[in-house]
Amino acid sequence: MKLPVSTEWVLHCAATLAQLAPGATASAAQLAAYYDLPQAYLAKQLQALVRAGVLAATTGPRGGFRLGRPAAEITLLQIVEAVDGAAAPYECREIRQRGRGALPAEQCQRTCVLAEKMAEAHQAWRASLAGVTLAGILDELPATAPARTRSILGQAP
Amino acid sequence: MKLPVSTEWVLHCAATLAQLAPGATASAAQLAAYYDLPQAYLAKQLQALVRAGVLAATTGPRGGFRLGRPAAEITLLQIVEAVDGAAAPYECREIRQRGRGALPAEQCQRTCVLAEKMAEAHQAWRASLAGVTLAGILDELPATAPARTRSILGQAP
Ligand code: FES
Ligand code: FES
Repeated sequence: MKLPVSTEWVLHCAATLAQLAPGATASAAQLAAYYDLPQAYLAKQLQALVRAGVLAATTGPRGGFRLGRPAAEITLLQIVEAVDGAAAPYECREIRQRGRGALPAEQCQRTCVLAEKMAEAHQAWRASLAGVTLAGILDELPATAPARTRSILGQAP
Repeated sequence: MKLPVSTEWVLHCAATLAQLAPGATASAAQLAAYYDLPQAYLAKQLQALVRAGVLAATTGPRGGFRLGRPAAEITLLQIVEAVDGAAAPYECREIRQRGRGALPAEQCQRTCVLAEKMAEAHQAWRASLAGVTLAGILDELPATAPARTRSILGQAP
């Protein structure tokens, strides 16, 4: 069970964009340089965040990425699922209905209790990440972080 | 983020073994036939459960598998981690210390808040699965299940 390595990238890029002045943007090149990441691959992941509404992309000479909605309305779950999808890690293939032990279909109308417990665990994971917003993350950073971030990105602090 | 397809196999095989009479065993061949699974690959997964102490293997002509400890002391987490390992799906590679935005090492003595939140979500998943035992699963099966299971496995019900 592995999340893609780009999960860390997009979490950090989203937290970085959350520190910009209202209306300011950062390009994929700037974000790639900020964290020393492969720019083309990062740009693809940022586009996935745009499709999920987490980021907005602006075009033109000063174009780039900014948050797609307020930081208090963006959760870690939305960011993670934008790059990894929302599929649950456990897949039930209904093996209870196969082989010598196969249960008849009429006894399988309810979800298998094992599949149910696995789904509950996935919901616990999702609920944990849905309970953390980018605004909450910013609150845990040092007060000086946004000024530092803006200045490294070449923007007035 | 995917669990191996064999996760469903081992969860069901463990629940099946939990329904046997005390001291009774079932072989990998019997369990494979019960659920129509590839026997050699299933046997490997069952061995992983033995290494984790979830199952015990007995040898000899009537050899096979049985639970390694009481069903009330075997959790779904132990079964899942026996086949998939206990590594967390999220891997922090400390990108906060890389690139133009690199934080100095002395500011990175505490775990990054993003890595911390991802670890908390994994702990929520683990806690959910650690809270379900095989005994609890058996309680949710129809009262007739053990007799049916034993009879299909060719054992006196
Ligand atoms: S049939 Fe899939 S988990 Fe039970
Ligand atoms: S440095 Fe890895 S999650 Fe922040």
